[in-house]
Amino acid sequence: MFNLLGGITVMSLRVAVIGAGYWGPNLVRNFRGSASWELVAVCDLDEARARKVVGDARVDVETDLDVLLARTDIDAVAIATPAGTHRRIAMAALEAGKHVLVEKPLASSQVEAEAMVAEARTRGLVLMCDHTYCYTPVVQRIREIVRSGELGDILFIDSVRINLGLIQPDVDVFWDLAPHDLSILDAILPGGLAPEGVAAHGADPIRAGRACVGYLTMPLPGGAIAHVHVNWLSPTKIRNMVIGGSRRTLVWDDLNPQQRLSVYDRGVDLDLTSMTDDLAERRSASISYRLGDMYAPSLPEGEALGAMVTEFAAAITERRAPLTDGKSGLRVLRVLEAATASLGDGGRMIDVVSRELEVLA
Amino acid sequence: MFNLLGGITVMSLRVAVIGAGYWGPNLVRNFRGSASWELVAVCDLDEARARKVVGDARVDVETDLDVLLARTDIDAVAIATPAGTHRRIAMAALEAGKHVLVEKPLASSQVEAEAMVAEARTRGLVLMCDHTYCYTPVVQRIREIVRSGELGDILFIDSVRINLGLIQPDVDVFWDLAPHDLSILDAILPGGLAPEGVAAHGADPIRAGRACVGYLTMPLPGGAIAHVHVNWLSPTKIRNMVIGGSRRTLVWDDLNPQQRLSVYDRGVDLDLTSMTDDLAERRSASISYRLGDMYAPSLPEGEALGAMVTEFAAAITERRAPLTDGKSGLRVLRVLEAATASLGDGGRMIDVVSRELEVLA
Amino acid sequence: MFNLLGGITVMSLRVAVIGAGYWGPNLVRNFRGSASWELVAVCDLDEARARKVVGDARVDVETDLDVLLARTDIDAVAIATPAGTHRRIAMAALEAGKHVLVEKPLASSQVEAEAMVAEARTRGLVLMCDHTYCYTPVVQRIREIVRSGELGDILFIDSVRINLGLIQPDVDVFWDLAPHDLSILDAILPGGLAPEGVAAHGADPIRAGRACVGYLTMPLPGGAIAHVHVNWLSPTKIRNMVIGGSRRTLVWDDLNPQQRLSVYDRGVDLDLTSMTDDLAERRSASISYRLGDMYAPSLPEGEALGAMVTEFAAAITERRAPLTDGKSGLRVLRVLEAATASLGDGGRMIDVVSRELEVLA
Amino acid sequence: MFNLLGGITVMSLRVAVIGAGYWGPNLVRNFRGSASWELVAVCDLDEARARKVVGDARVDVETDLDVLLARTDIDAVAIATPAGTHRRIAMAALEAGKHVLVEKPLASSQVEAEAMVAEARTRGLVLMCDHTYCYTPVVQRIREIVRSGELGDILFIDSVRINLGLIQPDVDVFWDLAPHDLSILDAILPGGLAPEGVAAHGADPIRAGRACVGYLTMPLPGGAIAHVHVNWLSPTKIRNMVIGGSRRTLVWDDLNPQQRLSVYDRGVDLDLTSMTDDLAERRSASISYRLGDMYAPSLPEGEALGAMVTEFAAAITERRAPLTDGKSGLRVLRVLEAATASLGDGGRMIDVVSRELEVLA
Repeated sequence: MFNLLGGITVMSLRVAVIGAGYWGPNLVRNFRGSASWELVAVCDLDEARARKVVGDARVDVETDLDVLLARTDIDAVAIATPAGTHRRIAMAALEAGKHVLVEKPLASSQVEAEAMVAEARTRGLVLMCDHTYCYTPVVQRIREIVRSGELGDILFIDSVRINLGLIQPDVDVFWDLAPHDLSILDAILPGGLAPEGVAAHGADPIRAGRACVGYLTMPLPGGAIAHVHVNWLSPTKIRNMVIGGSRRTLVWDDLNPQQRLSVYDRGVDLDLTSMTDDLAERRSASISYRLGDMYAPSLPEGEALGAMVTEFAAAITERRAPLTDGKSGLRVLRVLEAATASLGDGGRMIDVVSRELEVLA
Repeated sequence: MFNLLGGITVMSLRVAVIGAGYWGPNLVRNFRGSASWELVAVCDLDEARARKVVGDARVDVETDLDVLLARTDIDAVAIATPAGTHRRIAMAALEAGKHVLVEKPLASSQVEAEAMVAEARTRGLVLMCDHTYCYTPVVQRIREIVRSGELGDILFIDSVRINLGLIQPDVDVFWDLAPHDLSILDAILPGGLAPEGVAAHGADPIRAGRACVGYLTMPLPGGAIAHVHVNWLSPTKIRNMVIGGSRRTLVWDDLNPQQRLSVYDRGVDLDLTSMTDDLAERRSASISYRLGDMYAPSLPEGEALGAMVTEFAAAITERRAPLTDGKSGLRVLRVLEAATASLGDGGRMIDVVSRELEVLA
Repeated sequence: MFNLLGGITVMSLRVAVIGAGYWGPNLVRNFRGSASWELVAVCDLDEARARKVVGDARVDVETDLDVLLARTDIDAVAIATPAGTHRRIAMAALEAGKHVLVEKPLASSQVEAEAMVAEARTRGLVLMCDHTYCYTPVVQRIREIVRSGELGDILFIDSVRINLGLIQPDVDVFWDLAPHDLSILDAILPGGLAPEGVAAHGADPIRAGRACVGYLTMPLPGGAIAHVHVNWLSPTKIRNMVIGGSRRTLVWDDLNPQQRLSVYDRGVDLDLTSMTDDLAERRSASISYRLGDMYAPSLPEGEALGAMVTEFAAAITERRAPLTDGKSGLRVLRVLEAATASLGDGGRMIDVVSRELEVLA
Repeated sequence: MFNLLGGITVMSLRVAVIGAGYWGPNLVRNFRGSASWELVAVCDLDEARARKVVGDARVDVETDLDVLLARTDIDAVAIATPAGTHRRIAMAALEAGKHVLVEKPLASSQVEAEAMVAEARTRGLVLMCDHTYCYTPVVQRIREIVRSGELGDILFIDSVRINLGLIQPDVDVFWDLAPHDLSILDAILPGGLAPEGVAAHGADPIRAGRACVGYLTMPLPGGAIAHVHVNWLSPTKIRNMVIGGSRRTLVWDDLNPQQRLSVYDRGVDLDLTSMTDDLAERRSASISYRLGDMYAPSLPEGEALGAMVTEFAAAITERRAPLTDGKSGLRVLRVLEAATASLGDGGRMIDVVSRELEVLA
């Protein structure tokens, strides 16, 4: 519970990981490798599975959630169970006074997520969603660049995430792939992901029973637009995001490790001083182009999951919201639910600015 | 009027170019360089402009359209005037018994275009639309590949055409850039471009008075989908089309002259024999992946405009429709009009399979 | 010593790893993960270091080489100690009747390596050099393609391996990087790497005390040429090999995981039938170009080190030479020594076809 | 002879182009399009060929060189005849008091070139070599960057120019392709291209009668090295130059129009203060790496040949040497001759710092 860090003794937080399946072992490894955390227990209904994850480490194995949550030597839990169980386990943990980290998606519906967010706020506990991608060095750097104002106003964001993907038995391509793009947008955009609407178009050309190709269109405040293309059927892999700003434009090509990020000092300038309110008078004469240099910032190495557990600890210690807090998870869910609604209604634009957000603000 | 070709005398067709502005000189150059054509006259209201285009060639200059069309030594005319004048000039030419080539767009509305198509059919004359891009070696090859069945059924087509573009004073980004993508789709798809609907989403984040970023979604028969992204505001230029098929997938990267075309023998296979009608039983177990080789066909050199005027002559001589006939131009206009309608109605999916098409079939 | 593999019992070979430093743990992991091997012991002068590598596995720790080699339950040893000790340890192991795998370089000189090769041959034991790169799926595939004759005669091979590299305290850039290229050439070329000469040019522009930029030129029999560029000072990483053949040309770009290998059906054809012996009459008229398709084979996944230990076992069981046998290690050393000699003699071309090779053939 | 430029009258220089073959028409077009020049005559033994190049322009056609050179209304001549005739025509023109521009190579031997350079100097006339590539925007920018000291000391230059090339009937791949690289090096390097030696290695694997694959190695003063790879047999085209400096490294990829130039703030630092004279003590400890940003400067559009004729006029008017003066052409020839000598002597390093250069300095 005490670590010696740089000569001074600091108290580390004590955490239990719930769920020893697909993602749990990654959490276990990162909590164990973190100076901010002491891993106290791993909890799974299947004791053998939990034991295997623990290995020869001095970490308890628990099989009863109530017993785990009743322990007083645990500050926080990390939930890596199926999405359908997130709400129940997280609520129980919050009621037991534990800080909570939840695997994405935060819950299986917006309503569930709102209850979780409200509960954590009431109790003054940290509720965090593990949007791992947001903790990669490249997204951290994009966030800095966007928030510094270097790009100017955001004009458009176009994100493409396509590859030959495993067709999921239970979710469509939106719920499988878009959470990555949406959580990144949420982390990057000042104020988080708050589109004015969501329109979704999908296709299931192989008759898999769910959309395998999907397009999300999200008008943003101020006339900007965000668009996401997710696709399980493409043999060429593309992981690309273009963030067009009024001053500069950023291009992120995640499959080019030698030049992942490029910032272009090029763009379109509109001379607003020479314009009148009459749209007809807005002539091309008042538009000019900048064709300046490009720079590609160097990025540090670093594992995203390690940065994520560090942020969890920091949020608890500093009594502040983490970067990817419960509301972030909620905003992502809100867009996904709107996408599903739009998909069921012929691609109609669904309004997402709703009463509940105000309540939670 | 007679050319000596390979030892045998062939009769060449006689053509006049109407309009000596931006595009006319390109047509003049290509008709003059073609063994199939004899350029007889250039017609423009501005005699000096016409003379300049003619240069020292033995080609007449006309300034009166009626005089030009009354000449009996002209088989065909090529119209390179502003879009708003296309219908009037083309109708007059058809009524004068001339075959007609029209710059894109075919007309300024679907209704106008339908009248032109009907008139040409009634008179048994060739009406062709200059969709130049369709005559590039790469599009010709893509057309062959798609039509040979090599790709299997088309599952999805995703086209991206973005760069720092000149904001047009009179048209939005859809009407400026998408005609290229749409005419290519029309040339490639068996049966031409016949989407079940069109949904358009646009943004004008620089307040230019018209959409500068645009997304077109077009469900195709059989569950497939086509999508087009056009954008004037991106400092990085992308000209990309992915055609995903049930057997193979084709990727066209027009900015990579060393590997413009790649055909991947990779994809997703669905074992239909093991499937029942019950969607719930369509398990991922019945889906498998192929990770085969890729090949990049070599492409011949060749100027598109030269191939286009050759096709115009061949269609007249062989009494058949050219590749990009009037109906092709009409189908492109139909989608563009539907896009405008969708844009004005919040992105609603607009039905485009209409009565008129049946009439024209 | 017995493994159950697919229902049948097979005897696995017993191996000890000597040296628990930088590379030893990788060997330990792969021998333990192999169905062909049983790891019996790890030997290191530093017992604690050996114990750490062994972990909780049931593997003996030895600190005395003589004791290790005296054990009768060991079929083979893998030597991962500093290069200067390879000869002594390998000779002792061979004399003790063990098959031997040696980390690259095989020895610190050609003379040492020849003694080792001769000893292994006399005793009928397998002597193998761990040229790991030769066991990657991409090199295995290149080897198949070259040996199948698909490329025709080899005309030239150009290999580039440059990046910002750690300047080594004891070796120059040739000895640090070129062994990779040379061992790959040796695995690929029919008959192995047998250049007619070696010329080396180097530069030490940062005054590091040894060549940091190096070029190796190696005329091959039949008029072909191989060339290697190694460089520690380049901030852009390039790992590239072009193998030009009379029928096809292969390009390997190791930093492009999406298209690592490309085979071009393009090249220069010389019409030999129309040629006379008179060089002056060899006109360009008899030369033509093929501009055919390219294909990019798909490559399986697979860890090179795993394939390497499997090959070691197979060579022992099948009583044959392994792909990267002692003579392969010797040929690589021969070129490196010639490079050093050339470097010391102003880049003079050093003859490498020597008597000893005949003896060892 | 007088042009009105921006409101002020400037006198343009009068030029004649000698040679109406392959390159002559390009010169004619650019002299005619230049505000600095008035094209007075085109001279060719074949009058019809000269007339065709002149077209309907008011330019004299001459067929007798003596008559042409006797004219007093000509300030300068541009020689675009076969290399073997350069010396004779240039000497006659200089003796007639004309400034001279010569197509590359300047002459067919170093000795000829030296005579030409000496003659021009004696007469105070401009002698310029048309190294067109040096006037491209990208090379101009590279020259600025290198000369500004931004890269620090040059450590190495590696140039690759390979593609499927036309095998020339009279010259090998060095004389065909390397002049481009060498003239660029000459323009870029402060003091011009002055290697300490030249070693050339070539191969003729298709028995074309001359080297089709070539490598040039050139030690530079101060321990740096330049290397050029030219190759006619590669189906993949590469045009690449890396200029490694002590502070920054520049990478030029001429086939990537979207990012032709990249400047990396990465490299190897050697802490010289902690070093002793004892080479053995130069430890890797004193070496560190910088992994900074990269930037890609935007480049203006511009035709190289236009910039070249402008430079010719400016040099005459300002009575100074042009960027690619006769001595530049001489230095390129000197390296090419050394390469031929090295090729004939088994790749021996040929000394090129000779007496003559001092004389001409």
